[in-house]
Amino acid sequence: MAKQPHLDDFLVPFYGNGKKSETFALTDYDTAAKPFSTGTKQADRERLAEFAVRLDEMQERLHAQRCERVLLVLQGMDTSGKDGTIRAVFHEVDPLGLRIAPFKAPTPDEAAHDFLWRVHAHAPAAGELTVFNRSHYEDVLVPRVLGQLSHGDLVRRYHHIRQFEELLADSGTAILKCFLHISKDEQRRRLQSRIDDPTKHWKFDVSDLEARKQWDEYQAAYRDALTATSTERAPWYVVPADSKTHRNLMVAALLLRVFEGLNLAYPPAKESLKGITIA
Amino acid sequence: MAKQPHLDDFLVPFYGNGKKSETFALTDYDTAAKPFSTGTKQADRERLAEFAVRLDEMQERLHAQRCERVLLVLQGMDTSGKDGTIRAVFHEVDPLGLRIAPFKAPTPDEAAHDFLWRVHAHAPAAGELTVFNRSHYEDVLVPRVLGQLSHGDLVRRYHHIRQFEELLADSGTAILKCFLHISKDEQRRRLQSRIDDPTKHWKFDVSDLEARKQWDEYQAAYRDALTATSTERAPWYVVPADSKTHRNLMVAALLLRVFEGLNLAYPPAKESLKGITIA
Repeated sequence: MAKQPHLDDFLVPFYGNGKKSETFALTDYDTAAKPFSTGTKQADRERLAEFAVRLDEMQERLHAQRCERVLLVLQGMDTSGKDGTIRAVFHEVDPLGLRIAPFKAPTPDEAAHDFLWRVHAHAPAAGELTVFNRSHYEDVLVPRVLGQLSHGDLVRRYHHIRQFEELLADSGTAILKCFLHISKDEQRRRLQSRIDDPTKHWKFDVSDLEARKQWDEYQAAYRDALTATSTERAPWYVVPADSKTHRNLMVAALLLRVFEGLNLAYPPAKESLKGITIA
Repeated sequence: MAKQPHLDDFLVPFYGNGKKSETFALTDYDTAAKPFSTGTKQADRERLAEFAVRLDEMQERLHAQRCERVLLVLQGMDTSGKDGTIRAVFHEVDPLGLRIAPFKAPTPDEAAHDFLWRVHAHAPAAGELTVFNRSHYEDVLVPRVLGQLSHGDLVRRYHHIRQFEELLADSGTAILKCFLHISKDEQRRRLQSRIDDPTKHWKFDVSDLEARKQWDEYQAAYRDALTATSTERAPWYVVPADSKTHRNLMVAALLLRVFEGLNLAYPPAKESLKGITIA
């Protein structure tokens, strides 16, 4: 890129912005790019460490204020680094102030409800920072690729997602959605390294290979889901994620920007406490 | 102490061990002691950093094996440092592998059930490490001090707690319970510092002062609860906690010993994965 990169260059056009949505393509984004790299891996790591400390400060203010809520949604193909992102970006955040909600294949009880039922239960409360590790977006990806969802049902689900996220936003939830974008080649390397290291076999599920066979179908499903659900109050960003360091740096930068937009301040001192001496 | 300190010197005698339980007194434990200090604060911090990394490794194995469960229960008077312990001890543990369950005053829905109902819901699943930040022990402390519980009901609750923890242990849960032991003077200093710093007023609840007035009653309630529920499979430890660094070091050491007792190994490599090359 010739011009200075900006986080919003990686914003998925908002739903309803017809022309821009139509021309949006994941292939336009280089998975190996490192637009927010500061130069060297060492410098990037130092930067991330700074960001991590600032995120902790922001989370403490969020918690102190008990008013706003922050939700980070992480999606991406297998091995795209959702787990690693959580670990790196939130390394300094107080575990008391962070809630991770992982969504796996629905249980029979979950599947017996509407697809947003189990997700809603994990929406952040006032003062909470919640990360969805996978999310309701799985429900417009997997069943679509497996051919279990009609086009009409798929479009209705997009609609329900937009409405649901608007409800959360109306209740004071700042929402950030990140698609961790890796190449098929990079996934091959990562899966292979799990196979080559017997201590990592427990991370490996043979069904990952099935999903890999449908790489193109999943990319198309992601493209459609992203363009149908990127909105001003719940925007999607494409995060080039072949480089783990860059991926972490960019997610942290996006999240920090969300926090900064909240103008979080500590609650005012309580007059009633002034001058009290504890006996 | 003249002799080399041992973690089990701080073990509350097991329930049923009549004579030892009868003579157990919290006042026998010096809140300001630092038996597991390595000498300097700097050296202690380095030691804690080592422990933190080892706890992360242990947690990953626990998660990989998906068989055992680990539960840490933290109790202590206000300002005894439950939050600070969690932050320091688990600083290196992957947030994906750690679940913190905080228990505040019961909601009306929770209070409409038996006192273990809301607690049971947060018991760790296979492969999980869970921390109870306060716990079912509040229910044999607060209502007792407030005179809301007959002696008979209190004794029955101790019994139910022992049975409940035995159920968890029978299901493969390793349980460690730590009482963070501070002095009344140290609590005064900590409360005062919250009052003197207006940015910390949000942490201050005037009800903390009410509980402080009943310091002796709470100490007696703790003494009885600890001796009635310290068992071989769910032991209580008294952690001298006036020194934050020592407190963190001792809790981490206790927890590491629990993990080491589990002999966690990575699951065996999957034969079916050997030699696979990802296309």
